[in-house]
Amino acid sequence: MQAEIITIGDELLIGQIIDTNSAWMAKQLNSIGVNVKQITSVSDDATHIVEALNLAQTRAEIILITGGLGPTKDDITKLTLAKYFNMELVRDDETLKNVEAIFSRLNRPMIESNYKQADVPDRCTVIQNKNGTAPCMWFNEKGKIFVSMPGVPFEMMYLMEEEILPRIKKQFKLPFIYHKTILTANIGESFLALKIEKIEESLPKHIKLAYLPKLGTVRLRLSASGDDEQKLKTEVEHYAQSIIQEINEFVASEEDIPLEKAILNFMAKEKLTLSTAESCTGGYIGHLITQHPGCSVVYAGGAISYNYQLKESILGVKNETLTTFGAVSQQTVEEMAKGALAQFKTDFSISISGIAGPDGATPDKAVGTVWIAVASKKSTVSKLLQLGNKRTQNIERAATAALTLLLNQLKDYVK
Amino acid sequence: MQAEIITIGDELLIGQIIDTNSAWMAKQLNSIGVNVKQITSVSDDATHIVEALNLAQTRAEIILITGGLGPTKDDITKLTLAKYFNMELVRDDETLKNVEAIFSRLNRPMIESNYKQADVPDRCTVIQNKNGTAPCMWFNEKGKIFVSMPGVPFEMMYLMEEEILPRIKKQFKLPFIYHKTILTANIGESFLALKIEKIEESLPKHIKLAYLPKLGTVRLRLSASGDDEQKLKTEVEHYAQSIIQEINEFVASEEDIPLEKAILNFMAKEKLTLSTAESCTGGYIGHLITQHPGCSVVYAGGAISYNYQLKESILGVKNETLTTFGAVSQQTVEEMAKGALAQFKTDFSISISGIAGPDGATPDKAVGTVWIAVASKKSTVSKLLQLGNKRTQNIERAATAALTLLLNQLKDYVK
Repeated sequence: MQAEIITIGDELLIGQIIDTNSAWMAKQLNSIGVNVKQITSVSDDATHIVEALNLAQTRAEIILITGGLGPTKDDITKLTLAKYFNMELVRDDETLKNVEAIFSRLNRPMIESNYKQADVPDRCTVIQNKNGTAPCMWFNEKGKIFVSMPGVPFEMMYLMEEEILPRIKKQFKLPFIYHKTILTANIGESFLALKIEKIEESLPKHIKLAYLPKLGTVRLRLSASGDDEQKLKTEVEHYAQSIIQEINEFVASEEDIPLEKAILNFMAKEKLTLSTAESCTGGYIGHLITQHPGCSVVYAGGAISYNYQLKESILGVKNETLTTFGAVSQQTVEEMAKGALAQFKTDFSISISGIAGPDGATPDKAVGTVWIAVASKKSTVSKLLQLGNKRTQNIERAATAALTLLLNQLKDYVK
Repeated sequence: MQAEIITIGDELLIGQIIDTNSAWMAKQLNSIGVNVKQITSVSDDATHIVEALNLAQTRAEIILITGGLGPTKDDITKLTLAKYFNMELVRDDETLKNVEAIFSRLNRPMIESNYKQADVPDRCTVIQNKNGTAPCMWFNEKGKIFVSMPGVPFEMMYLMEEEILPRIKKQFKLPFIYHKTILTANIGESFLALKIEKIEESLPKHIKLAYLPKLGTVRLRLSASGDDEQKLKTEVEHYAQSIIQEINEFVASEEDIPLEKAILNFMAKEKLTLSTAESCTGGYIGHLITQHPGCSVVYAGGAISYNYQLKESILGVKNETLTTFGAVSQQTVEEMAKGALAQFKTDFSISISGIAGPDGATPDKAVGTVWIAVASKKSTVSKLLQLGNKRTQNIERAATAALTLLLNQLKDYVK
């Protein structure tokens, strides 16, 4: 079963808004066995919308449309759909009640454009939108399903979950789709490919392998589709385990989660705690970790020791170390890690000190020179990174490298 | 001048990745006077890519393509483009040098698939990608411009900024576009609109005003397009100054910069220093600040005091305060700010303590309860926020609110 997503709105085409709706919808559709063939963003222009509708139905059975349903003049999706399907706009009582209820709740008077929100094409199925004034419209036309939804993310999400996905599942016999993701760290995409070449070649046609690289990590995703749910799961898990066996030392997680979440899960399971001592990453590692609910079981906190003085006062780095070797040095970064471990009373600590750039280079240390360290009661290990000259990327790459170093130390620690 | 964006990759169509590239590219193209007609995401499938290419050139003069250029078998963009334009793949010496340099820097051996990254269609213009192994390819074919770029955001961004946009500007006569952005904080969109209603109504047709709200700040953007550069600038600046006069107390910056950068500029000019004491934001404010080059003139660093112990040991919050009032309280957040000021020896400090959620609520404190404070030698002010139940949004909103409180205190301080 093929679907297409059409998102409508000038704000998408001038880059004012990132289209987060499509990825969310695609993920939901995939999970019920509907394949998304194409995502198309078009402007609030009737001719262009019609062209997109014409083309989408040559490729897909289900066309999901978001946006362009507001009360202002630039929103023309409803009118365009009515003309496209040769329908008349008629006022819908249920919708009107919904609009009136919303305005009464907000204690605001209704103007003419608000009443028009209750006008719908006469042969569509109206699905009430409890979270907003624009109704959702379901068309069964030309042998295809067309659904028009509001572009406001939470309105669309609610309608998809409560109404659209259940209706699609009811109307079509869908295949089962199974995904398995393996998160790897510390190995490049091409090396991974080489290591699992034979497994990849042995995959049956209905199981696909994708490489998804991102700043020092690569996610491997096996996807299979078919009718027999149990058989698919068993098959995919079999190949996944073969891959994991082959690249075991590089596997950070067998779930589709980010690196820091894999570390949090690992440490929570082992009842280990963590602190951070960040200089050039300026709190980014702390931020990555604390995005995840429940991180406080593992994470105690840390220092953002951006200047010399804080490295000394909070972390206990010796003044002599800083003046002799500099802030960006193996000696300093190891003292930072040891200091964090002692001061913040955790089982592990990460430290980072480097030149994120674009300024700050010295005659012997280029922009992109970063030292990272991980300390535990058992050992302190450190590593020199030579990154590029882009500040934001250096911060992200240094954080990923430090988290990878931590993961490796954790694996050794519990051996 | 019309452009289209085609993003290629199965990961977009199964919703594993949100297409952030397109919005960024659209914004850049808009800023040089190129209009984006459509954004299309297609799978790693040759027939589908060719169909998208055929259709895009019926609507646009410039077609920008991202993705599908990795070294693995599922990446077929380069091969598809070569066939589409009837070109042979030939090894490019410059590209090979670049690939070799990257592998040598990473200290990794090259395998066959890495060498293939240096193969390019024989009649395209190769643009070197300093940040990755996939070259950028510029095709001048069928009277149109086609550009293929890697999908990795920072590689694409660098290529767009340094190579593609300058080449487009050189090749086409584009209208002059002038944007002026005013960053406001501490005022809602509809209140702003009411305050500048008369100025907005008096704007000539070729000058447009847009409201761009984002978590506690609203950017006002005046955009004008035309041929007379000097005249446009003078006109837009005139209206901008009228607006600024009307809403002066809410203006954070007259440049298109984020709130924290406006603060850094202000503090650098006044030779003031800053430290942070973050609990529920977990380093996010530190991260926002340290994204900006040169921030070390202002920012000393800070504490991520995620647990009780660090609030006491680094920031000197009294144990009695924590046990009596709790970590999320006016008393604690003020002691955190004062502690940071004293310990980190800065002119100003920000502190935050709250319940980011989804867990952690207590009978008297709901998820989204956040206290923020700003301390200086002159005063300590604090504020209670009642945010929602989304963790990520709470972290971002709390950070923006704390930065806004700081900005207001700074304005008072230098009066």
